[in-house]
Amino acid sequence: MAILVVGSVAFDSIETPLGKVDHCLGGAATHFALAASYFTPVRVIAVVGKDFTAEHEAVLTRHGIDTRGIEHADGLSFHWKGSYSGAMDAAKTLDTHLNVFESFEPKIPAEYMDSEYLFLANIDPVLQARVRSQMPRVRRVCGDTMNYWISGHAENLARVLRELDVLLINDGEARMLGGEQNIVKAAKNVIAMGPKTLVVKHGEYGATAFFSDNSFDNGVRMLHPFRAPALPLAEVVDPTGAGDSFAGGFYGYLASQPELTPEVFRRAMFYGGVMGSFAVERFGTERLQNVTRPEIEERFKLFREISHLEYA
Amino acid sequence: MAILVVGSVAFDSIETPLGKVDHCLGGAATHFALAASYFTPVRVIAVVGKDFTAEHEAVLTRHGIDTRGIEHADGLSFHWKGSYSGAMDAAKTLDTHLNVFESFEPKIPAEYMDSEYLFLANIDPVLQARVRSQMPRVRRVCGDTMNYWISGHAENLARVLRELDVLLINDGEARMLGGEQNIVKAAKNVIAMGPKTLVVKHGEYGATAFFSDNSFDNGVRMLHPFRAPALPLAEVVDPTGAGDSFAGGFYGYLASQPELTPEVFRRAMFYGGVMGSFAVERFGTERLQNVTRPEIEERFKLFREISHLEYA
Repeated sequence: MAILVVGSVAFDSIETPLGKVDHCLGGAATHFALAASYFTPVRVIAVVGKDFTAEHEAVLTRHGIDTRGIEHADGLSFHWKGSYSGAMDAAKTLDTHLNVFESFEPKIPAEYMDSEYLFLANIDPVLQARVRSQMPRVRRVCGDTMNYWISGHAENLARVLRELDVLLINDGEARMLGGEQNIVKAAKNVIAMGPKTLVVKHGEYGATAFFSDNSFDNGVRMLHPFRAPALPLAEVVDPTGAGDSFAGGFYGYLASQPELTPEVFRRAMFYGGVMGSFAVERFGTERLQNVTRPEIEERFKLFREISHLEYA
Repeated sequence: MAILVVGSVAFDSIETPLGKVDHCLGGAATHFALAASYFTPVRVIAVVGKDFTAEHEAVLTRHGIDTRGIEHADGLSFHWKGSYSGAMDAAKTLDTHLNVFESFEPKIPAEYMDSEYLFLANIDPVLQARVRSQMPRVRRVCGDTMNYWISGHAENLARVLRELDVLLINDGEARMLGGEQNIVKAAKNVIAMGPKTLVVKHGEYGATAFFSDNSFDNGVRMLHPFRAPALPLAEVVDPTGAGDSFAGGFYGYLASQPELTPEVFRRAMFYGGVMGSFAVERFGTERLQNVTRPEIEERFKLFREISHLEYA
């Protein structure tokens, strides 16, 4: 089933210990859409500037991604400049130019209205809520957010949280949103705010899902969290977009399945890790553009091998 | 088969957000021995002072732990005072009194000489090497170390590393010892120093094992690491000794098995996590003293449930 994603399509200038790139295609919606496109049809709502060319658009359309919802505005696209050093577990933002993204007003094309899965990437929760309210028939809603919205726009964010099937955030965000240092207690508080399920991303350590009584279609209740591994990689070229790629693999797989059961959810967590592990192998979206479905399945098996007691 | 452990038997004064205790029985060898005792016979070499009473000794002997190698010296036992706050992922040392531990000279009782498994807890590598050399018939050697020895006693440590089947250290120690921020590269460098297998402990995120061509008795080569989960706990009362308890569960299980195969190693990693998760539920060694074998098996199943794709 088709996923509609709303978020940033941007250009990134990135420096890591392994090199640097200037103005490469990036943005949360881009990473998400490419990762999800290997599993299910994807439609994008975003705004770009004059620097977003037909060539950039082709990166998406080559993967069958519907770009009719990408608005072309006067001015330049959102541009982020950042660097990583040491263990590369956190980006240092050097510069942010919102440009055309500053006045982003998501508009949903008529052709997108039958999307059953909605992904609200990390943007102003006011915009997230507006998109959500315009999609009354959507079957499932998954979203992301960040510290900036958690600390400064709590009320707006609260309205979005109530609508979410799954919230995907990282450890620091979960602790801040849940108001607790202990991640299990923080997760409980976050789920009390609305999301049926919380997925906390741990970077190189994988991700943990925390469930509620309403997490699954089949009414099954999971009393305990589920922890998916990340792949230890000898070479992380560029961590930018790893979280969005995780979200894309996770949600793309979910949307490809007829029912949301614990088994499907677990596999989705693994596919999230798989797509995240590919994303960081090259700068920008290069690896996400060129990965093949057999490679994805092979790495899925590898994720099983590195985490399961029985080895094949 | 019996494990001989050499390390500290000490008293800890600990303060965490959930309470405080004064002079409770602790030390690496204590946590290790108690955790391992659920799987295999354990023998301890350590030194204690006059404050270590028959009651303290009974904590160990009640678990069948052989304490004939615990030397009773004049003076006071090793005393560590520390506190935890926030996410409790790192201890703040408030005070350290080595006391009788300062002039610790491990002496191996004749009755211990047939021990087939040796665990060198975190002590001066000179002493670790001395114990190792006095046990020529030992079948397997596993050890721990810390930043202090890595940075300041590299040559002495190098001699120990060459003797190890398994080195168990945490992320920061692995990065420092391997001279690399990337954990896969760091692990490769560490294994080049001697240990056949490296287990890196990630605290609340579990642990990862990195293998070499000589990791297993049956000649099997594992190309990829193995990642074991930790249990997300809503209440961590006291993280002190979690790593040593992990080592005890891990090595205790290994020693209970006839052969070291990948399957046995994987299960050992899970049992390590299981014992670590019990250890932090109460102050000091309280929980390790009172856990039961059925509880251990139940939690082992839980570790499988939270990490495996197929759920029972």
